[in-house]
Amino acid sequence: MLLTNAHLVTLPRGGDYGLIPRGAVAMEGDRIAWAGPMDDIPTPYRDGPVQDLGGRLVTPALIDCHTHVVFGGNRAAEFELRLNGASYEEVARAGGGIVSTVAATRAAPDDALLADALTRVDAMIAEGVTLIEVKSGYGLDRDTELKMLRVARQIAMARPIEVRTSFLGAHAVPDDYKDRPDAYIEEVCIPTLRAAHAEGLVDAVDGFCEGIAFDPAQIARVFDVAGALGLPVKLHAEQLSNIGGTQLAARYGAQSADHVEYATEADARALAKAGTVATVLPGAFYTLRETQAPPIQAFRDHGVPMALATDCNPGSSPLASLLLTMNMACTLFRMTPFEALSGVTTHAAAALGLTDRGRIAPGLRADLCVWDIAHPAELAYRIGFNPLHARIFKGTL
Amino acid sequence: MLLTNAHLVTLPRGGDYGLIPRGAVAMEGDRIAWAGPMDDIPTPYRDGPVQDLGGRLVTPALIDCHTHVVFGGNRAAEFELRLNGASYEEVARAGGGIVSTVAATRAAPDDALLADALTRVDAMIAEGVTLIEVKSGYGLDRDTELKMLRVARQIAMARPIEVRTSFLGAHAVPDDYKDRPDAYIEEVCIPTLRAAHAEGLVDAVDGFCEGIAFDPAQIARVFDVAGALGLPVKLHAEQLSNIGGTQLAARYGAQSADHVEYATEADARALAKAGTVATVLPGAFYTLRETQAPPIQAFRDHGVPMALATDCNPGSSPLASLLLTMNMACTLFRMTPFEALSGVTTHAAAALGLTDRGRIAPGLRADLCVWDIAHPAELAYRIGFNPLHARIFKGTL
Ligand SMILES: [Zn+2]
Ligand SMILES: [Zn+2]
Repeated sequence: MLLTNAHLVTLPRGGDYGLIPRGAVAMEGDRIAWAGPMDDIPTPYRDGPVQDLGGRLVTPALIDCHTHVVFGGNRAAEFELRLNGASYEEVARAGGGIVSTVAATRAAPDDALLADALTRVDAMIAEGVTLIEVKSGYGLDRDTELKMLRVARQIAMARPIEVRTSFLGAHAVPDDYKDRPDAYIEEVCIPTLRAAHAEGLVDAVDGFCEGIAFDPAQIARVFDVAGALGLPVKLHAEQLSNIGGTQLAARYGAQSADHVEYATEADARALAKAGTVATVLPGAFYTLRETQAPPIQAFRDHGVPMALATDCNPGSSPLASLLLTMNMACTLFRMTPFEALSGVTTHAAAALGLTDRGRIAPGLRADLCVWDIAHPAELAYRIGFNPLHARIFKGTL
Repeated sequence: MLLTNAHLVTLPRGGDYGLIPRGAVAMEGDRIAWAGPMDDIPTPYRDGPVQDLGGRLVTPALIDCHTHVVFGGNRAAEFELRLNGASYEEVARAGGGIVSTVAATRAAPDDALLADALTRVDAMIAEGVTLIEVKSGYGLDRDTELKMLRVARQIAMARPIEVRTSFLGAHAVPDDYKDRPDAYIEEVCIPTLRAAHAEGLVDAVDGFCEGIAFDPAQIARVFDVAGALGLPVKLHAEQLSNIGGTQLAARYGAQSADHVEYATEADARALAKAGTVATVLPGAFYTLRETQAPPIQAFRDHGVPMALATDCNPGSSPLASLLLTMNMACTLFRMTPFEALSGVTTHAAAALGLTDRGRIAPGLRADLCVWDIAHPAELAYRIGFNPLHARIFKGTL
């Protein structure tokens, strides 16, 4: 299939949009066979089926590289309680916080969890997303962690989208291990990781390194097991304080360090050296009304690739729009529209350890978005507006 | 037509959701004939056509009471320039700012202006909006102001939505009247208002009362003409500073004072006394990274009704989602989900001088939204997610 009359945004290595105003893309199977100016279309591709895109803008498809879309219940009641002035204690007494999501996720049958997740996945697909990362972490027990990862895998069977799973057993300390985080890591988290891996449910291993969750030594225990199993790692690090998570992630050659509001210049240097992506999550920053933005300029200065994701979750980021995430990154973090687009394509792929997508070039995956706009900056500029015309997944419109 | 098995959010006078968990609504023509518990459905309505809503939530339809959806061009290039570090002078030299929108709006033919506006209107309709206010103000000359208002009227012919127009000739001082704002008011603004009114294009008269636009005395000149023509007034007031716009609006019995970030306790008292709605616009607050939120608590204390709107415009609020506006009002201004819902229904209607909609009660307009959610707080809680199941406009699904 040949796409013609397309305004291509190829995102070549080297840092610009790589615009080809009158461009074409030839697709073979699920791959891009050729992309370039319309005047240069190689002869063989001229004879196949042609789709005229009417001058519309074409970018790589969007990738949401950090989500928690599988969970039970929602936290609207807690959201309302807080805004009506309830204290944290009152919210906790009313069953709020992550505890409520863990309880609802444990209680939910597989099909209900899947159906609920698909409402969010459908919103992402409608904006041109073709690949999402999905984490466990609301089970905090063996059965529920496995259930979450199985449901994550089912998403890719239920919808035309690809899923990468991350095991996030080290998300929070469950009530029955209160004040015994090390015991939780040894007795629940690590055995569950081994079981999930044996079932083929784990593409990467994640953790939440924070005062309110696990310290670097506890995360390192999990990462050591991941390494032994041959699994890549990534980490929620430096969201609310700096306790060394980013340095730990770099030391383990993590795919990404995520949130990173409190990362320092030295952390940026370590990430660059390790080739670790910094994934920024403005939806959580916005929802929690944080005041410390990630050190974007340090990431730029040291050449740390920056990815962007929704962090879609019921508590700190009930956000299902990657386009809105792009606007938030520009408005709240002063990233440029080009950085925002790279962050949900090239660098989002890198944050998942993938180099075969996120650009438009021969050999890469034919996952593309066709937009009703004239310039790629419009994707980040508009707020709460979806200009998607068509989504191409594995070479199919 | 009888809607059954509905979870009604009736929003009665007196300040709560007015939930009727197993409710029904009877519609006759474009009006609500009856609404109440399913067990109490009056006999005549039981015999007509019935639509079972499967327990879904039903609210009054949404109303966007402050928009500038008719304009030419967009400001994505300017957005990108600024984020790449351009100074205000550089942006101005590159043709940025409101001047660029005025030039693009003057240059655009009617049908192009309409087609462009409809992309935004369609996004609003998709979220359950049945009524929008649309302002002129990017013409700043007679022909273009009239053109904008005609296009605004055409929206209601092109789509199943109602439009209320506001004449906003006093939006900015055009280049050819630089440093002569009074002359602009007398020579252009007021004669254009008279011409637009004569053509039946004006439902209300608006102004931008700010240091960078017009002072209260200049706005008062326009309001006096509005009064003589029998037209209600409303005002952009106290967005960036306090120069007395809110007091002016109250003195003229305005339908609404809009933005009002810098309004004081005394201003709140004046609004309450005048019965003027305070319309808050969090999209502009967010986009401009303002730090002073409107005095929500003072509005509550004095009983000032608060409306919410997108302020959809190409510069300070390129926002087309009223649901996201609700979340922003809660997150950024600490309004409650109930206040947010009232702000886009009951109080949005009041901000347009309408009392025949914005609640679910007999005699009111049968403009309703059917949502795939369990509780109305979910509308403001989620971010970038649209749970609309169906929209009912003038009694028609
Ligand atoms: Zn997360
Ligand atoms: Zn406005």
